[in-house]
Amino acid sequence: MKRTFDVAPWNIVTTKWAPEDKRLQESMTSLANENLGMRGFFEEGYSGDKMEGVYYGGVWFPDKTRVGWWKIGYPKYFGKMINGTNFLQLTIKVNGEQLDLAKQEPTDFKLDLDLKKGIFAREFTAEVGGAKLHFTFERFVSVAQKELVGQRLHVKNLGDAEAKLEVASVINGDVYNEDSNYDEQFWDVLEQKAAGEHALLVSKTKPNPFGTPQFTVGVKTTTKTTLEHVGDGTTAKTAENDFAGTLAAGAEVELEKRSVVATSRDFDTQEALVARLDELAGQLDGQSFDDLLAPHVAGWAERWNKADVEINGDDEAQQGIRFNLFQLFSTYYGNDSRLNISPKGFTGEKYGGATYWDTEAYCLPVYLGVSDPKISRNLLMYRYDQLDGAYVNAQEQGLKGALFPMVTFNGIECHNEWEITFEEIHRNGDIAYAIYNYTNYTGDKSYVLHEGAKVLTEISRFWADRVHYSQRQNKYMLHAVTGPDEYDNNVNNDWYTNLLCQWTLKYTLQVLKEVDADVAAKLNVTEDEKRKWQAIVDNMYLPYDKERDIFPENDGFLDKDLKPVADIPSDQLPINQHWSWDKILRSPYVKQGDVIQGIWDFIDDFTPEEKKHNFDFYEQYTVHESSLSPSIYSIIAADLGYEDKAVELYDRSARLDLDNYNNDTSDGLHITSMTGSWLDIVQGFAGMRIREGKLHYAPFLPKKWDSYQFTQVFRGRVIKVLVDKEGTHVSLVSGEPLTIDLAGKDLELK
Amino acid sequence: MKRTFDVAPWNIVTTKWAPEDKRLQESMTSLANENLGMRGFFEEGYSGDKMEGVYYGGVWFPDKTRVGWWKIGYPKYFGKMINGTNFLQLTIKVNGEQLDLAKQEPTDFKLDLDLKKGIFAREFTAEVGGAKLHFTFERFVSVAQKELVGQRLHVKNLGDAEAKLEVASVINGDVYNEDSNYDEQFWDVLEQKAAGEHALLVSKTKPNPFGTPQFTVGVKTTTKTTLEHVGDGTTAKTAENDFAGTLAAGAEVELEKRSVVATSRDFDTQEALVARLDELAGQLDGQSFDDLLAPHVAGWAERWNKADVEINGDDEAQQGIRFNLFQLFSTYYGNDSRLNISPKGFTGEKYGGATYWDTEAYCLPVYLGVSDPKISRNLLMYRYDQLDGAYVNAQEQGLKGALFPMVTFNGIECHNEWEITFEEIHRNGDIAYAIYNYTNYTGDKSYVLHEGAKVLTEISRFWADRVHYSQRQNKYMLHAVTGPDEYDNNVNNDWYTNLLCQWTLKYTLQVLKEVDADVAAKLNVTEDEKRKWQAIVDNMYLPYDKERDIFPENDGFLDKDLKPVADIPSDQLPINQHWSWDKILRSPYVKQGDVIQGIWDFIDDFTPEEKKHNFDFYEQYTVHESSLSPSIYSIIAADLGYEDKAVELYDRSARLDLDNYNNDTSDGLHITSMTGSWLDIVQGFAGMRIREGKLHYAPFLPKKWDSYQFTQVFRGRVIKVLVDKEGTHVSLVSGEPLTIDLAGKDLELK
Repeated sequence: MKRTFDVAPWNIVTTKWAPEDKRLQESMTSLANENLGMRGFFEEGYSGDKMEGVYYGGVWFPDKTRVGWWKIGYPKYFGKMINGTNFLQLTIKVNGEQLDLAKQEPTDFKLDLDLKKGIFAREFTAEVGGAKLHFTFERFVSVAQKELVGQRLHVKNLGDAEAKLEVASVINGDVYNEDSNYDEQFWDVLEQKAAGEHALLVSKTKPNPFGTPQFTVGVKTTTKTTLEHVGDGTTAKTAENDFAGTLAAGAEVELEKRSVVATSRDFDTQEALVARLDELAGQLDGQSFDDLLAPHVAGWAERWNKADVEINGDDEAQQGIRFNLFQLFSTYYGNDSRLNISPKGFTGEKYGGATYWDTEAYCLPVYLGVSDPKISRNLLMYRYDQLDGAYVNAQEQGLKGALFPMVTFNGIECHNEWEITFEEIHRNGDIAYAIYNYTNYTGDKSYVLHEGAKVLTEISRFWADRVHYSQRQNKYMLHAVTGPDEYDNNVNNDWYTNLLCQWTLKYTLQVLKEVDADVAAKLNVTEDEKRKWQAIVDNMYLPYDKERDIFPENDGFLDKDLKPVADIPSDQLPINQHWSWDKILRSPYVKQGDVIQGIWDFIDDFTPEEKKHNFDFYEQYTVHESSLSPSIYSIIAADLGYEDKAVELYDRSARLDLDNYNNDTSDGLHITSMTGSWLDIVQGFAGMRIREGKLHYAPFLPKKWDSYQFTQVFRGRVIKVLVDKEGTHVSLVSGEPLTIDLAGKDLELK
Repeated sequence: MKRTFDVAPWNIVTTKWAPEDKRLQESMTSLANENLGMRGFFEEGYSGDKMEGVYYGGVWFPDKTRVGWWKIGYPKYFGKMINGTNFLQLTIKVNGEQLDLAKQEPTDFKLDLDLKKGIFAREFTAEVGGAKLHFTFERFVSVAQKELVGQRLHVKNLGDAEAKLEVASVINGDVYNEDSNYDEQFWDVLEQKAAGEHALLVSKTKPNPFGTPQFTVGVKTTTKTTLEHVGDGTTAKTAENDFAGTLAAGAEVELEKRSVVATSRDFDTQEALVARLDELAGQLDGQSFDDLLAPHVAGWAERWNKADVEINGDDEAQQGIRFNLFQLFSTYYGNDSRLNISPKGFTGEKYGGATYWDTEAYCLPVYLGVSDPKISRNLLMYRYDQLDGAYVNAQEQGLKGALFPMVTFNGIECHNEWEITFEEIHRNGDIAYAIYNYTNYTGDKSYVLHEGAKVLTEISRFWADRVHYSQRQNKYMLHAVTGPDEYDNNVNNDWYTNLLCQWTLKYTLQVLKEVDADVAAKLNVTEDEKRKWQAIVDNMYLPYDKERDIFPENDGFLDKDLKPVADIPSDQLPINQHWSWDKILRSPYVKQGDVIQGIWDFIDDFTPEEKKHNFDFYEQYTVHESSLSPSIYSIIAADLGYEDKAVELYDRSARLDLDNYNNDTSDGLHITSMTGSWLDIVQGFAGMRIREGKLHYAPFLPKKWDSYQFTQVFRGRVIKVLVDKEGTHVSLVSGEPLTIDLAGKDLELK
C-alpha cells in the first residue's frame, strides 16, 4: 500500500513532488473520453523515469507473438492498443534552458485532478535559465466533443529580471510502445506540416502480415498565445509551431493549445480525415479555452447527476468511489458499440489494452445501474458483432460453435498462454450470462430474442462439443479448464465453469422457446442438438463435498495442503511477487473468487447455509491478488450479514489504485475493477436485487459511515436511495411510479 | 513415413538427387566425434533450401528468452548449442561459374555414409561453366584425433575441352543460428589470417548478461593440392586460401583439406589456443588424407567389435540398428565428463542441443551394455558436477535440495515452458534411478557410496519438500506435475512421478546405511529428515484402479473419454500436427509411456498380471509421438510374450529417422531415441536382466528374422549372444568365467 495523494472528496490532489512515483502519478491523473485518452505525463517533457502514453480508442496493432514452443491453436498475434501520436507536447525554454523537472526541482508544486469537472491541473515554481517562474498547466479531454483535447499554459515571471520565454507547440509522431515483442516501432508518419497557429500530423500503423486493418490517426493543433510566432518546423516524424517573448519581472503570459483528432475508424481516406480536422479546427476557432471547457464540465455534471454516490463520514471511501466512477466513465460511456472497456483503459499498455471478460462480468452490472440501457446494450452488440471471430477461435481448437476470446480487439483471440487462452473458457458463459443479466435488469427482450439468441446458440454449440461424457462417473464433464482463479491452471471440472456451461444450455433452450419462428429458422437448432443440450443440463457433473457442504473449486482441490492465508508470513504477500509459479499452482490459494463468483451470479439460487459454508471455506484461502476479487467477496459477505467483513473488503476494492494496494498502479489503473466499489455499495450494503422484475433493497449502514446515498437507473426511472442512521429513504427522482421491495416489505415509489 | 535412402547393412546410401529433401539428407549424413560434428551439408555451397550446421561439443550460448507473461521461477535464458565456424567450405568455380547443385542438376549422383568406417562420401557429374566434370567429396571427423576433420576433393574433367578450375578453401565465421529468439548473431570473429596452405580463424561467443562463460573456438586449416596456390584472402569474418589450375580433357586433380579445432574449454588464452592449433597442424603435416583416415577407421572398428549387432534375414532392421549405434557413438563416447548426449546430438539446432533426462533414462542402459563402465560413470559425474546448478533450480521454485534441470548445459534450467520446467520433475527420479542402474549393472559401488550418495540425498531433500500431505486422503501426494506423457500437463499424482519419488527416498535411506562415516558426516542427513523420508515411503499415494487392476496415469485420467487410438482417423495422425493443444490435453492419448515407463524401470517388481493389465490398457491409448516411446513398449511387450507386437514396435523405433516416421528428421536426428533399438533387442527380444548381480537371458527370435547376434559388456567380460532358429548360443569373448541364467537355467561361460 502506498498513498501519494491527499484524501479529498472530489479531487486527486497532492502538493508533494515525488519523482520516484512519477509513473504512479501519471497513471492516477489519466484523462479520457472513450474516444481517446492519455496518461498524466508532463507536456513540457521530462528526462527522468516516465511512461508517456496517448491512446486512441479502437486503434491497435497486431504485434508478432513469441512463445517457447508453438503448438496448434496458439494465436498468431498479440493485439495491443498502442501508444500513438503525442500532440500535447509544449517544449519550454527560459533564457535558452529547457524546462525539465528532472533537472530543476520545483517548489510550490501541486497536481490536481478535478473529478467533478474532469480537469487535470498542474502548477509549480521552477528556476530555469537563471529566472524564477511559476507555471500552470491545465488539460481536459472533452466529453462534449469527442475529438477535442484542450490545454492551457500560464507562466508568470516571479524574478526581478526579465526572462526570455520560448514555447514550441509540438505534435510528435515518433512514439514507441514499451511493450513491443521485437522492439519495433508500430507507426509510420504519412504527413506533417506546421504554419502559424496550426500544425498537422498524420500517422498510420505499419503493415502487418496478419491481415488486420491498418489505422490512420490524424491530429491538428491550434495554438493561441500573446507570445510572438517565431517560426515553424517539421522533421520526418514531428511538426511544431514556435513562439517566443520576453517576460518582464512580474509579467504573465498565457498559451492555449487545442487538438482535434480523427482516425480511419471514421474516415476512409486520408483526405477525408484531414478535411474533417480542418473543419473541426475551423468550427472551434472562435472559442477560447474556457468556452470549450464549459460544455465538457456540463457533460460531467450530467454524468454525476445520474451516478454519484455520496458517502458521509468516510472521506477515503468517498474519494475511492468517485475516482473509480470517473475513470470508468472516462474509459467507456457507450457512445460507440465498436469500443469496449479494457482492463487499463487509456492509462497504460499492460494487458494489451484489449477487451476481456471483465466487461460482461464486472462492468455491465454497473452500467445497467447508472446509465441509459442503450450503453449496456452496446456492450452486448460488441460481442454479437464479433461472432465471426468467435467461430474462428472455436475452430482453432477443433470445436463447434463460438468461443469468445479471452483478449481481443476484433473477436479473434490474441493472448498466448495456452492455460488461459484455450482453457479459461468460463468467459463464454460469462458472456451468455450478461445477456440474461441485461434482460433481467432492463426487462428489454429485444436483444435476447434476436442477436442474443444467436450468441447463446453458438455458445451452447461450443459447450456441447467441449464437454465429454465420463463413462466412469456417468456424468458430463469439462476437463482441462482454468477458472477465474488463475492460481490453479488446467484443472478438471472447475465448478464455476461447469455451472456456467450447464446454465447456458438451460437458458438457451428456454430462450429458443420464445424466439419468433423466423429467428428460430435462422438459428436452425436441430432436435438432436436440443436433446444433447438437455442431456448435459440433466447430467452435468458439479463437484460437491458432503462433509463440508461446499462446492470444491475443482477436482483435487480438497486434496491440497489446506493452510489458510493467515499462515503465510506477511513478507511473502502478495504471493505472486514472492513465490514461484509452481508453488502458487500447488497451493490452495485463490487469486479471485471462483466458486464465490458463481454464487454471486446466482445468489438467489443457493440456501443461506450453502452460501455461508462456501464463503467461510474459501475466504480463508483467498489472497485477492486479482483486483477483481475483493468486491465480489464483499457482496457475498454483505448477503450473509458479515457487515464488517463486507466493509473491509470494500475498502480494499474502492481504493485499490488510490492506495496502490497491488504495487502495480504505475503500469496503469485497474479500470475494470473500479466497478467493484459501486457493486459493493449497491448490491452489497444496500442489498439491491432484481427478482422477477422487481427491485429489492435490504440495506445496512457501515458502522464507520454516517450515511450513503446513491442514484440508480431502473426501467425508465431514476431512483435515489439514502441510507443513514435513521434508516433507508428511497425516492423516485423521475419516471413512472413503481413498487419496490424494501427489506421484505412493498414500498410504492411516486 | 518417407524413405529416401537405400536399404544396405552398413551404408546410408542413395543415388537419387532429391533437392526437396535436402535438409533430411543433411541430417542423415551428419558426422561427429563427440568433440565436434556437423550436418552433411555440401562443402561447395548450395543456394537452395538447406540448413548448414557445425557444432562444437560443450560450446553454447544463453539466448534471451521470450515468454508471454513472465512469472517467478521462469528461467532467464535458453541455452543453445550454437552453429559455429564453418571450416569445411570449398568454393569451386569452373570457367568462372560457381558449382552449385541448386543451379546445375547433377547426374551420376551418389551420397554414401559408410557406417563401418565413418566416412561420408559424395560424388556426381555436373556441367559447370560449359565443362562437364565429375566431383567426389570425402569427409571424416576423426575418432582417433578429436581435433581433426579430414576432407578430400577429387575432380575429373569428363569433357573434350580443358576447364579452368578454381577452388577457395574457406573458413567462414559469418554464421547464424536459425533458432535465435531475437534474430541475433551469437559470434564475434577475433582473428583471421590466410597464407599459402594455411588459414586460421578464431571466433568468440558474444558477451551475455547472464554471467555464463563466453567460448572461443579456433580452427586452422591446411589445404594440399597439385593446383597452383594463387592467393589468399580475409574479410571481417572469413579467411581463405585460393587455388587454381587448368584441367585438360580427361585430367584429374585432388585437393586435401584438413582442419584442426581447439576451444577455450581446453585453453585459457587465445594465444595458447592458437599455439595448440599450430602444433597440431605441424604434427599432422607429413601425413596424407589416407594416413589420417587409417586410425579413424581403426577406431570405428574397435567400437563395432564391442557393440555390433548382426541381424540376418532383415536388412531394414540391420541397417536401422547400425545407423542408430553409429550416430549414438558419434554423439557421445564418454571421453569427456563435461559433455553429454543431447536429443539431436551434432545434427541440428532443435531442443537447444542441451542435456535432457533422456541421457539417464534411455542412453545410460545402452552405454552400460556396450562400452567401458567409465563411460557410463562419466555420465553420472556430469550430474554430480552440476549439483550447484541443481540447488539453484530448486531454490528458484522455493524448494530445498536439488532439482536437476529439464534442459541444461551447466546445471541451470534453461527451458521456459512452466508445465515442463517446473513440473516435469520425474527427471529428478530418473537421475537417481540411473545411479541405481549403474551400480546394479556394474557392481561398482564407488560412485553410489560417494558422489552418488550426495546426489541422492539432495534429490531426496527436494522430494521431501515437494510432496504435501493430504489430510483428506491421509497420504503424501505430488500435485501439479507433468509425467513423461507430456500430452497431459499439470496433473495431480502422476503415478510414475509418485513412484520415483517414493523409490528415491527408499533407495537413499538404504544407501545412507552403507556409506562411510566421513561421507555420512558430510551429508549431514538428520534423524528428522530420515523419519520424514520413511514416512513418505510408507505413505505415498499411488493411484490404483481396482476394477481394471491398473495404475491410472494420474488423478482424473479414468474420467477421460476413453476412446482408443484406433478410433482416430488416420489423416489426423500424428495428432500433434493436426489437433490443437487443447484437444490433445483433454484426450486420453499418451505421447510416450508414463505408467509403462515405470513398469520398465522396475520390471521385476510387478506381477505378470499387473504388467499385462497395464500394457493392454495403455497400449490402446498410446500414440508414440515421442520418439522415445515405442522401444519401451516393445520391451514390455516382449516381457509379456507379445512377440509380434514387440517386433512391430521395434521396427518403428529402429528406423525412426531412416524412414522419417515423425516427419521431422529434416531438423536433425533423434539421437537419444536411437538407443531404443538396442534396448529392444537386448532387453526385449533377448530378455536380458540383471537380478542380484546375475546376468539373465530369455530370448526369442522374431519370426521374420533368421538370427540375431549381439555383443555385451558385463562386469569385465565381453559376451556374445547369438539367437537363431536352433536356439540361443552364449559365449564368452573375453574375461573371467561367469555363471549366467539362460531361460531359467544356469549356464557356465568360460
